[in-house]
Amino acid sequence: MNDRITRLTTTQSDFDSALAKLLAWDDSVDHQVNESVRHILREVKTRGDAAVLEFTEKFDRLKVGSMAELEMDKGRLQAALERIPRDQRVALEKAAERVRDYHERQDQKSWQYEDEDGTILGQKVTPLDRAGLYVPGGKAAYPSSVLMNAIPAKVAGVGELIMVVPTPDGVVNDMVLAAAAIAGVDRVFTLGGAQAVAALAYGTETVPAVDKIVGPGNIFVATAKREVFGVVGIDMIAGPSEILVICDGKTDPDWIAMDLFSQAEHDEQAQSILISPDAAFLDAVEASINKLLPTMEREEIIRTSMIGRGALIHVADLKEAAEVSNRIAPEHLELSVEDPQAMLEDIRHAGAIFMGRYTAEALGDYCAGPNHVLPTSGTARFSSPLGVYDFQKRSSLIGFSPKGADRMGRVASVLARGEGLTAHARSAEYRINE
Amino acid sequence: MNDRITRLTTTQSDFDSALAKLLAWDDSVDHQVNESVRHILREVKTRGDAAVLEFTEKFDRLKVGSMAELEMDKGRLQAALERIPRDQRVALEKAAERVRDYHERQDQKSWQYEDEDGTILGQKVTPLDRAGLYVPGGKAAYPSSVLMNAIPAKVAGVGELIMVVPTPDGVVNDMVLAAAAIAGVDRVFTLGGAQAVAALAYGTETVPAVDKIVGPGNIFVATAKREVFGVVGIDMIAGPSEILVICDGKTDPDWIAMDLFSQAEHDEQAQSILISPDAAFLDAVEASINKLLPTMEREEIIRTSMIGRGALIHVADLKEAAEVSNRIAPEHLELSVEDPQAMLEDIRHAGAIFMGRYTAEALGDYCAGPNHVLPTSGTARFSSPLGVYDFQKRSSLIGFSPKGADRMGRVASVLARGEGLTAHARSAEYRINE
Repeated sequence: MNDRITRLTTTQSDFDSALAKLLAWDDSVDHQVNESVRHILREVKTRGDAAVLEFTEKFDRLKVGSMAELEMDKGRLQAALERIPRDQRVALEKAAERVRDYHERQDQKSWQYEDEDGTILGQKVTPLDRAGLYVPGGKAAYPSSVLMNAIPAKVAGVGELIMVVPTPDGVVNDMVLAAAAIAGVDRVFTLGGAQAVAALAYGTETVPAVDKIVGPGNIFVATAKREVFGVVGIDMIAGPSEILVICDGKTDPDWIAMDLFSQAEHDEQAQSILISPDAAFLDAVEASINKLLPTMEREEIIRTSMIGRGALIHVADLKEAAEVSNRIAPEHLELSVEDPQAMLEDIRHAGAIFMGRYTAEALGDYCAGPNHVLPTSGTARFSSPLGVYDFQKRSSLIGFSPKGADRMGRVASVLARGEGLTAHARSAEYRINE
Repeated sequence: MNDRITRLTTTQSDFDSALAKLLAWDDSVDHQVNESVRHILREVKTRGDAAVLEFTEKFDRLKVGSMAELEMDKGRLQAALERIPRDQRVALEKAAERVRDYHERQDQKSWQYEDEDGTILGQKVTPLDRAGLYVPGGKAAYPSSVLMNAIPAKVAGVGELIMVVPTPDGVVNDMVLAAAAIAGVDRVFTLGGAQAVAALAYGTETVPAVDKIVGPGNIFVATAKREVFGVVGIDMIAGPSEILVICDGKTDPDWIAMDLFSQAEHDEQAQSILISPDAAFLDAVEASINKLLPTMEREEIIRTSMIGRGALIHVADLKEAAEVSNRIAPEHLELSVEDPQAMLEDIRHAGAIFMGRYTAEALGDYCAGPNHVLPTSGTARFSSPLGVYDFQKRSSLIGFSPKGADRMGRVASVLARGEGLTAHARSAEYRINE
């Protein structure tokens, strides 16, 4: 490579600011995109199907007579499943099975308990009535993403799962449709962009309104999701993908280089960082990077990403590696070390943690079981992988016995009067036993 | 009352549109507020303490020499606790105990399991490092809100909980400080408005940056929270408070009228709705409303709210009442009926459900145990009460055995190549046992 990948060491005096600069990511909103998205949302909200058809003709160059032509029936999904190569079908089915198994363990149950006064307290868990899944069309069409978004919704018990996927110029992706068939998606519309998000959020004559919209998309889709948040729920707005590898220096450097590439190949903004207490190992991985790069199909994307946003960081020991990792709060964290379980207690923030030399991050993208939709850009400090819990919500349950209402009514009365809310106080006082 | 409260019946031909009109709530953003908030955020982000001091002097008319003067030490909180009337202290402590007991049941545990290949899968639950709690100053200063926001954070194990509360003109609220002492808040700054949100989100020389900001506030606070979302986590942006009461007609109509008032007194935009299959009971409650209204301290607010946004809805039976309730997805739902547990299975969307004639909603606001921070404006369709889970996040755990990596590497390889991501494929293939 002409330019070298960034090297940092925690002993350099400006390490903190150099790390901050490396991680800085500008996700400021594009004013023009905002205006255009707001226009599309308004039109679809007020004019429904007619507006959706116009935008689909304009952006996807797809002219149809009615919305009905933009719905794909289940036979079409099933046909795609039967048409794809046998090994791909088997792999999709195996991946779906493992993803389903893992997510079933996230299912939450309602609970109730009774206190000594006979008062009942609890929490009722209910799945969403209807969820919408956005799937990008074109080259970024990932069947794995269909599985990862749809399966948690189905495990949660969502009543109806509606997928939208643009088919620019009428091009459909059989693997995506096959994944939808395997995951049990209920309805599919060939719509995309902000108009698809609007249709799902507000509903049209043909597309039913959903309660939550999940799934990745371009800047128009992300902006539209941000705008409709509140009308419906949304998942996280994702930034560029990231991997942080912590290695004790005893993993094959080619393996580590390829693990870094597996994020870098996503796009030029993806971020791949390696941390090690072994400086010679950092050299060895850099040599592997230089050796392997010319053999990669997506060489240019990987090169740009590695030089622009990648880094090799030297630390004193694995303890310090964990500290630096916590500051980064990476989306993907590989612990390529002898005893990853021992390191685990020092790791506080990460979307997913890949433990041990055999756990390539790429396995997690497809078929390990856990979700590949993960918090990016340091948001693992406060948010979680997509899961069954994103498709369920809780309602608190409170049932006072007369005795409990008498006892706690007195407490509520004092506090309500302290806050000057006398209707609250009197409502509670009616239930006090004089 | 001069104007009467709205009456609807599900048999009227325009019921659907009349209900939609009743529920409509415009939360469109104010452009001027937006600009002003963005300016404040930018200034605090770049100039830190200096900007915070300027805005505090400007908006709260509070001139101090340094940020240190805007921090309240724990002694000051403790003094407030000792100064408030004895019955208020006992009530706050009793409420805190019940809130803590309930929330402890929401604590989530990490889990791991091993599959037949020796591969480990799991989920690690970690509390947030640091959370910020916004508490409004002035007349809307509610100590109950301090308990409801702070206790779940402490139960979750948040490392440091930082409260901000404006003290316009230097006026402090002892009950709020006492509640902070009881809840175990770690640090308190007398800051408010968008500048407080900015200080918590970005950090300043004095105020440490937090990972999530919760708590209610005015339009400037809400707009600032919306803007910093992504940099930090936030709780829901709350709309006006709502109550929906379903009554079989056998509860004292005065009780029901007062329950409706207890929401209506919050503000003119609050919404109180009663649904009953008993038309004569709706008349009786309306009579109670007219009788009780002149006796209320907050008569004008209640009147405006009841006439502007309240409604009495006649339905065929309790089954239909549940259906209408699910369409509304209310923040608070009172089931003032003989057998609330039997009705529970028909209720899909509600922030909190108050079961039986003795369960005044007001009890839930203070001391029942469950949280009073609840999803408003129909967002109970997809979101939950504030809880311990809002202060914890999950990391997926994946640890492949060599055998597991061999088996699943083959699956990942097929899928990655199907998606054209060959670095992913090769990273997985390195771990395949040839």
